[in-house]
Amino acid sequence: MPDMPSYADIESAARRLAGKAVITPLLESPRLNDTLGGRLLVKPECLQLTGSFKFRGAFNRIAGGTTENGVVAYSSGNHAQGVAAAASMLGYPAVIVMPEDAPAIKIAGTRAWGADIVTYSRHDEAREEIAGSVARKSGMTLVPPYDDPMIIAGQGTVGLEIADACAGRDIAPDAVITCCGGGGLTAGVALAISHRFPGCAIHTAEPEGWDDTARSLLSGERQSVTETSASICDALLARRPGKLTFEVNRNLVHSGTVVTESAVIRAMVTALTFFKLVAEPGGAAALASAISGMVPVKGRTIVAIISGGNVDADVYADLVARGQS
Amino acid sequence: MPDMPSYADIESAARRLAGKAVITPLLESPRLNDTLGGRLLVKPECLQLTGSFKFRGAFNRIAGGTTENGVVAYSSGNHAQGVAAAASMLGYPAVIVMPEDAPAIKIAGTRAWGADIVTYSRHDEAREEIAGSVARKSGMTLVPPYDDPMIIAGQGTVGLEIADACAGRDIAPDAVITCCGGGGLTAGVALAISHRFPGCAIHTAEPEGWDDTARSLLSGERQSVTETSASICDALLARRPGKLTFEVNRNLVHSGTVVTESAVIRAMVTALTFFKLVAEPGGAAALASAISGMVPVKGRTIVAIISGGNVDADVYADLVARGQS
Repeated sequence: MPDMPSYADIESAARRLAGKAVITPLLESPRLNDTLGGRLLVKPECLQLTGSFKFRGAFNRIAGGTTENGVVAYSSGNHAQGVAAAASMLGYPAVIVMPEDAPAIKIAGTRAWGADIVTYSRHDEAREEIAGSVARKSGMTLVPPYDDPMIIAGQGTVGLEIADACAGRDIAPDAVITCCGGGGLTAGVALAISHRFPGCAIHTAEPEGWDDTARSLLSGERQSVTETSASICDALLARRPGKLTFEVNRNLVHSGTVVTESAVIRAMVTALTFFKLVAEPGGAAALASAISGMVPVKGRTIVAIISGGNVDADVYADLVARGQS
Repeated sequence: MPDMPSYADIESAARRLAGKAVITPLLESPRLNDTLGGRLLVKPECLQLTGSFKFRGAFNRIAGGTTENGVVAYSSGNHAQGVAAAASMLGYPAVIVMPEDAPAIKIAGTRAWGADIVTYSRHDEAREEIAGSVARKSGMTLVPPYDDPMIIAGQGTVGLEIADACAGRDIAPDAVITCCGGGGLTAGVALAISHRFPGCAIHTAEPEGWDDTARSLLSGERQSVTETSASICDALLARRPGKLTFEVNRNLVHSGTVVTESAVIRAMVTALTFFKLVAEPGGAAALASAISGMVPVKGRTIVAIISGGNVDADVYADLVARGQS
């Protein structure tokens, strides 16, 4: 088991990311607040370089580690772009292993950063093995998507910025909701927020059928999704929590919530209408948890992280149109 | 003629707006930059409170002026919401005169801030007269949409923030493009940018058929649109430049550009794909001017302001779908 990341590691990550990552604003809509009877703040990581928070962890890991021969990563698309961008900015070659059915915008975004892409079938092949094999043969360093202290510390800068913005506006958040796949964002944010706002609850949001973190938190041990189902939330399809991320999250996360597809689509329309933000389906899970009342907003102050916005324009238009009917 | 606003007036406006308006980030997409062969930065005022820059001028005007009995405004929707929000935050009643065919999101947004709404037919009635009549009868103060030094100074804080962000990142912009209706945003931004970056050109972007500012800049005198045509850019349908705004803009604006409807739709899709931002049609005009090459980006550094994001979700989905074909 690698070392547990600390709050100080997140501060170090913030220094590494200064001038590289976008310090995303903390936004709210008084009109939506009126409707909800509480205060809902969103942290739009869709505005981050590469369109998701993943750049933070990838850059922190690559800038802070040993990566002489370049880097290898496996990812459904957001970590892919984060690693490709960070490697490019730091002057390393990158090979990214991606599912062949990843959104076109994610494949194009990864390729645009100069990375070599190896595709695999999501159902038949183990992406970890393919990436591991590339790493062994090439001498490149594997940059894992979440189960790594430097990755977690990098994602934790999202929490640090939330804490700074809240402190600067005299806001004491009652809860922060994260979109949760393998748990890297959640672990980083939980470490930062629990340090700065010890009374603030942390909740995860996962799509229906992919509720491994929610069930793991309930049982206290890592649970896996065994029968997988289709989901529009392509960014959140991890089958079980990471080892290290769950070690953090079991202690710091209050509870896991599970959101339906229709709640996710409504959240995407809410992001469009009230915040003028394009959220990808997986990126809207935390907002879905808030507006559907799974994490109540009424009489409270809630922060929902919009974790990414990498969705193909035609798919987005279809989902928004569906959200109208 | 009221006094010309100065750079110092914009600094005063920024102090009034501190903690009230969102300091919107200055975003860029390295991937889009590669495609354009230059550097394109966007200033997303769609993320501003009320979904457009208009809140800045309205708040500055109402907070800095005499408005004992409340305020009246006429607007197609963005100024309406800006005035309604500012009046509500400052404790004044507001009456807003809006066209009956304004986007539903703009009417709902205005009503949500507690304003009384009076609608009129865009083709038959003079909104200025209706608003003037309300003001006379009620003793309320008319807050004009652009032709006012305090309004211009408030909108100028957009330019101040662009200048600050550029200076902080050692960027010297070659040009700034504004979306232009009556010219208030343009005048404020031109005052701020010409003070801070004297070598930077200012360009306006207007929709086809509503090119009064472009023609006025060419002739040196205010020109009017006489035969009006339908346009998706509902926020930019001013028939001629304001007196005061044009007095500023004739001296500080380099040239006016005119963008087609298809360029506007492509810009909306660009905002979605590369910046994860929802731009309303009128709010995408400046970006359209940049990506269509009317203001060349190749080898240069260009800032395009996305002035607003108040578009109904169903209309947005339709336009994005059209932009795919």
